[in-house]
Amino acid sequence: MRHVTDIETLGRDDLDRILEGALLYDRMLLEGKDIGDPLRGRLQFNLFYENSTRTSLSFLIAGRKMGVEVVNVPVAASSIHKGESLRDTVLTLAAQGADFLVLRASGAGSIDAAKSSMHEMGFGTSVINAGEGAFGHPTQALLDAATLYKALHREPKDGLGGISIAIIGDLVHSRVAASCTRLFAKLGAEVRLCAPEDLLPQWATDGAALVTTSRDEALDGVDVAMALRIQRERFDTDIPLDPETYRSDYGLSMEALSFAKPTAFVMHPGPMNRGVEIDDDVADDQSRSLILQQVAMGVPTRMSCLAFAAEL
Amino acid sequence: MRHVTDIETLGRDDLDRILEGALLYDRMLLEGKDIGDPLRGRLQFNLFYENSTRTSLSFLIAGRKMGVEVVNVPVAASSIHKGESLRDTVLTLAAQGADFLVLRASGAGSIDAAKSSMHEMGFGTSVINAGEGAFGHPTQALLDAATLYKALHREPKDGLGGISIAIIGDLVHSRVAASCTRLFAKLGAEVRLCAPEDLLPQWATDGAALVTTSRDEALDGVDVAMALRIQRERFDTDIPLDPETYRSDYGLSMEALSFAKPTAFVMHPGPMNRGVEIDDDVADDQSRSLILQQVAMGVPTRMSCLAFAAEL
Amino acid sequence: MRHVTDIETLGRDDLDRILEGALLYDRMLLEGKDIGDPLRGRLQFNLFYENSTRTSLSFLIAGRKMGVEVVNVPVAASSIHKGESLRDTVLTLAAQGADFLVLRASGAGSIDAAKSSMHEMGFGTSVINAGEGAFGHPTQALLDAATLYKALHREPKDGLGGISIAIIGDLVHSRVAASCTRLFAKLGAEVRLCAPEDLLPQWATDGAALVTTSRDEALDGVDVAMALRIQRERFDTDIPLDPETYRSDYGLSMEALSFAKPTAFVMHPGPMNRGVEIDDDVADDQSRSLILQQVAMGVPTRMSCLAFAAEL
Repeated sequence: MRHVTDIETLGRDDLDRILEGALLYDRMLLEGKDIGDPLRGRLQFNLFYENSTRTSLSFLIAGRKMGVEVVNVPVAASSIHKGESLRDTVLTLAAQGADFLVLRASGAGSIDAAKSSMHEMGFGTSVINAGEGAFGHPTQALLDAATLYKALHREPKDGLGGISIAIIGDLVHSRVAASCTRLFAKLGAEVRLCAPEDLLPQWATDGAALVTTSRDEALDGVDVAMALRIQRERFDTDIPLDPETYRSDYGLSMEALSFAKPTAFVMHPGPMNRGVEIDDDVADDQSRSLILQQVAMGVPTRMSCLAFAAEL
Repeated sequence: MRHVTDIETLGRDDLDRILEGALLYDRMLLEGKDIGDPLRGRLQFNLFYENSTRTSLSFLIAGRKMGVEVVNVPVAASSIHKGESLRDTVLTLAAQGADFLVLRASGAGSIDAAKSSMHEMGFGTSVINAGEGAFGHPTQALLDAATLYKALHREPKDGLGGISIAIIGDLVHSRVAASCTRLFAKLGAEVRLCAPEDLLPQWATDGAALVTTSRDEALDGVDVAMALRIQRERFDTDIPLDPETYRSDYGLSMEALSFAKPTAFVMHPGPMNRGVEIDDDVADDQSRSLILQQVAMGVPTRMSCLAFAAEL
Repeated sequence: MRHVTDIETLGRDDLDRILEGALLYDRMLLEGKDIGDPLRGRLQFNLFYENSTRTSLSFLIAGRKMGVEVVNVPVAASSIHKGESLRDTVLTLAAQGADFLVLRASGAGSIDAAKSSMHEMGFGTSVINAGEGAFGHPTQALLDAATLYKALHREPKDGLGGISIAIIGDLVHSRVAASCTRLFAKLGAEVRLCAPEDLLPQWATDGAALVTTSRDEALDGVDVAMALRIQRERFDTDIPLDPETYRSDYGLSMEALSFAKPTAFVMHPGPMNRGVEIDDDVADDQSRSLILQQVAMGVPTRMSCLAFAAEL
């Protein structure tokens, strides 16, 4: 069993293999082909210390499509919350027979701590990162890459060379942006990052070809524009802007997109704040919006991650 | 794929087919026959904006008995609640591969909005109404009809001609009453509606042979007496009565039932407020109470609805 | 179908059979053998009026490993909480086709009431006790016995003769202690019970060879030391002690264990309050701690209980 916890420790061969699997399973699902339960008899726990319905459902469906028994651990309702340490909780799940532990946690280091606990006690459970703090969300980045390959009619071996991608929004709190920047850069894309001054993180320069506070500069001639979700609560605290000003300066509107290539694709990890970081007509433009295709690619990408973890 | 969203748009042929399937699956379940997973590989989401354990469990079991993967969407715990529109939520589920979307919503028009979103974006997902506002709960009406056919030893092709059914209670807030009245009338039954003046809705005259505030008039010589759940909160607000007076004027007691046929059946959609709308000895009288048989018929009726939706 | 509701009503033959099954399924799971879905087509409800993630997950996995459809009833979120009686709830689940009703309840008598309701209405549903009040938790006791047999390299037919077991902690609130004492005594072990004066229950003398307030006396030359969870809330109310004093007088430390046999095993039903009833170095000592093995034995023991209930 292998862990799938971050983009950094995956080599280009591993990444290509996962992405090829994602595109293969996507075709099989669309054609209604029987997957054949290749992981029948395996047990997967979804342990989400933070709610994320979309990601949790996607991992649940992915596991079941592969024949895995999937069990959602009800963190909020459970005694897990009342003082049991992460270490005792993950060891308990491993002892109950977990083959896959899909873990979402708010604290930095939780994923590594879970891996260490497994090794220390001799469990063969595979840890899969479903989002950790502001630091990483590798399967979201992988599904975004798979979505781009499909939209661009490329294969993973082709990479993303020659493609420019602007990621715009609340970079400092976005686990998606961190993983996407690393992955897209590894695959050869030119990544541009754009946020208001206060929302530009430390890591923004790693792997990025451009870091800017100007949306128009970020979008200039770009192939792909990805908007990030901004939490409305932030406007009261971190951001010296109101939603209207944010929309006008950093939102993806048709007007803003006029700076990008005419064929530029639009992405968003969801859920969307329509009318803030993205306008309705952009989100719903079926000729350029990949947003529902990102959602659809979540299931086959996670199926491929499970297959990779199980060394199928 | 077909939608199952209201009684009105289903023709008599469709209704008969669903009800025949319900009675067939009911026999197969009781005889322990293998259903054979006819919908294996399909994916069903239960999206319940209002809690309804009984209905949700019934759809869950029905799906699994047919071989469907069923996923409960945790609405209350999820970001769905925090501002994502119904449209974006149902499109996300469709993109994740939903074949069936079992939807319960409080707002009028939600079911239609979900259907429209599916058509607009080209998804083939079947929308199934699991209760909408005060307007309809078609699968509850269908399971009630199937229960009656079984109790009366009739087949769906016979219809309910010659059978009189009194529905008594909080009609204005009852999605069950609305759907039952339409369905029973379509099947040829004589439907009588009875409620306190303040709880008689607008639609009460459509399809009903009698609308009255007198329980004894409603029950006079009737074949079936159906009591509706009344929410105790209502006594503080909508109803100028207390629970004791309500019980005495509108409750199903043995005394009240003496107006009905001696062989009259008793129904209730559950959960019951015992001692308010129905007395213990009536609810538990196994010679006339169909209440547990209604619950039991929920699973095969919803299996049949899924088969109908999938055009099996 | 048979019920599994208490240790008292199970004969030694029944106990041996359940424990032999537990050890057999444990080996099959560890060797990755296909269980073969022996209970395919059966339906299990987990109805937990009290949260217990560990027990609930264990029953869920056990059912699925046997091929059972398992449905968790969301008690907290459901109308079940809003006034529906236990009787109506369990009858509703039986009517929905329950083969197994795994029930956890806080009130004494709930398990018996559920059984009576099934018999009264003619349902063949098997009731399985997943913990009732402070009175019993038979499957926990069974998994503890199976864990001991495995650790001691004994078979169930050998019994636990010649083995002394000290159970230390909050006896008065512990459903685990009540069931373990009865079961271990039935199997021939010498059971010693130890608690602060205020936490010694009435039943403590039934089946126990020794009841004491002295931890060192309880541990003297013992083969097995089992610490019980103490809820921190208790320190404000029931126990005239603070956590530090409790740890020093009743906690399992390496120092305390020096009174036991050098090879003595350590057990805890979990979840642990580390640093209160048990120290880190004791809990994590892989040469003597059986704590994770207890968790691991939960699944095969409950599989065996389901097989026993179904008279496989």
